[in-house]
Amino acid sequence: MSDDTLLQTEEAIIQGFLAPLAASAPGAHGLLDDCATALPSPGHEFVLKTDAIAEGVHFLPGDPPADIGWKAIAVNVSDLAAKGAKPVGYLMSLAFPEAPTRSWMADFARGLGEAQAAFGITLLGGDTDSRPGPISITPMVIGEVPIGCMVRRAAAQPGDVVYVSGTLGDAGLGLQLRREPSLADKWGLGPDLAEHLIQRFLRPQPRIALSPVVLAHARAAMDVSDGLLKDLGRMCRASDAGATVHQNALPLSEAFKAVRAADPAAADASVLAGDDYEILLTVDPARRFAMEAAARDAGVGLTPIGFVTVTKNVMLSDGLGHAIPVGRSGWDHF
Amino acid sequence: MSDDTLLQTEEAIIQGFLAPLAASAPGAHGLLDDCATALPSPGHEFVLKTDAIAEGVHFLPGDPPADIGWKAIAVNVSDLAAKGAKPVGYLMSLAFPEAPTRSWMADFARGLGEAQAAFGITLLGGDTDSRPGPISITPMVIGEVPIGCMVRRAAAQPGDVVYVSGTLGDAGLGLQLRREPSLADKWGLGPDLAEHLIQRFLRPQPRIALSPVVLAHARAAMDVSDGLLKDLGRMCRASDAGATVHQNALPLSEAFKAVRAADPAAADASVLAGDDYEILLTVDPARRFAMEAAARDAGVGLTPIGFVTVTKNVMLSDGLGHAIPVGRSGWDHF
Repeated sequence: MSDDTLLQTEEAIIQGFLAPLAASAPGAHGLLDDCATALPSPGHEFVLKTDAIAEGVHFLPGDPPADIGWKAIAVNVSDLAAKGAKPVGYLMSLAFPEAPTRSWMADFARGLGEAQAAFGITLLGGDTDSRPGPISITPMVIGEVPIGCMVRRAAAQPGDVVYVSGTLGDAGLGLQLRREPSLADKWGLGPDLAEHLIQRFLRPQPRIALSPVVLAHARAAMDVSDGLLKDLGRMCRASDAGATVHQNALPLSEAFKAVRAADPAAADASVLAGDDYEILLTVDPARRFAMEAAARDAGVGLTPIGFVTVTKNVMLSDGLGHAIPVGRSGWDHF
Repeated sequence: MSDDTLLQTEEAIIQGFLAPLAASAPGAHGLLDDCATALPSPGHEFVLKTDAIAEGVHFLPGDPPADIGWKAIAVNVSDLAAKGAKPVGYLMSLAFPEAPTRSWMADFARGLGEAQAAFGITLLGGDTDSRPGPISITPMVIGEVPIGCMVRRAAAQPGDVVYVSGTLGDAGLGLQLRREPSLADKWGLGPDLAEHLIQRFLRPQPRIALSPVVLAHARAAMDVSDGLLKDLGRMCRASDAGATVHQNALPLSEAFKAVRAADPAAADASVLAGDDYEILLTVDPARRFAMEAAARDAGVGLTPIGFVTVTKNVMLSDGLGHAIPVGRSGWDHF
């Protein structure tokens, strides 16, 4: 049953819906104090990240509130996982243009709770404001790593093997399906494959299970949130290196392959743009098999897609062995 | 000279204007990585707070960008000071409805830099987004206290003496003057007094110098950001107690007294509503003189205004000794 009662006060939102999410963290002080407290485990330091999501920019107005709550946490936890960090807690700043309904808030809090359970993270504090503009959720997530061990973006070395987790491009296609459901027919997708792509957009799955593998084995790592080649370009620039990626090696889902067969242009654009939230990493070739075994044990797919080069371009190598230079602006031929 | 060039990319904003603010913090990694790292001093834990400010809600569209940058940090540092914490660093999420100009960003960053120098805090990381709606700045500040020593809101005890720092109501009057400059004439304020009130609105002064005094002596503390009586009511509810405050004891600036003489209603409303960013605290009567001496040494005014009671109302006692009960909704008679 939908409850359209408006939650007019910050206190109704906090004590009714958010305090239960903070109940297990002593440092949240029941969300009854002005600040939270937090202390890393002995020998560890905190890893901190904030990435906001806003209606119409990072999620669609019709997206289910539980999925919005999940996504707000997931996109930040994805960065922690890519840095080899273990999630600990988060603060969250909420901005609503009008008072949310009781139903909206209950669903949103349920999605936050599901993310908390999945990622091992707890609400510590935050802020709720009424202001014009889109609904905005700004989490600040806290993870921890052994002191000095955060896996950097800038540490890739020529000769390293480049890996990516999971599959690429699904979320971008899911976004297109959310915007235009009739594309499922055009692409010849059955309900299962269409739903797979949509869920990859609505419920990104940060690769938390890979985090200890990244910490133990990766030389450089970051999450893929703006498209593989754009993010690989950032990693290469930060590392003063380049990379060659093999087109045929890119990990693609069955659903993605079905779309590519029907509509290559849509598939190309999606691999470029996608909100993949996978982990991109490089590893010393001497450690690659140990890392692959650890990833298998962790149950997360990790696919070698190329290698780091001295030449500073990011190159895409096609099936015939031809190298196609790829600019920052994207990838036109897939 | 104003430079109206638009900053179209996140990179132009970050590397051009924000990275210099992060240069002294190793954990910021030059703002070139995906996450920041931070570790409390030995024996300390972190104190965390996030409070967003948005155009049209917390600052006015015409406010100078340097003042907006200052205020974003100051209102959060104010909470740290009230908890007895020493500021350490901050993350910041920025949302712009359109690309900021080079001049706007330079001024904004200058205000952030002034706040950093004044409060001993450094930028560690953040996120910049383009989205509709007002310009919004969401800092997440980090301070530190000896483990377990954060001064709580909920710890006030009957018999404690209630103190407030600085003066009350100035910022509320400053906001009215910003909105309606002709009020200065109506209130008979010379330029110095008017400017004092406006600066109290534009540049709140968190009482960082009092933070060690709070840590050493206060039983309960919080900052006054929504008006003295509203915030005292929150402290009393959290502490399961009440308080009596003496109207004649409230610390008021010369500028405030001048306005009150000319326009008592405006003054009353301001003491109620004001963005004071002062510290409200309670102290065991046995420690009050030691605390007063420490506050004097710290150079910050700290005025006793009443005491904590077993009776759970917050009462205002007038000059004739009559007690006026004050509801949550505010304070109608001043």
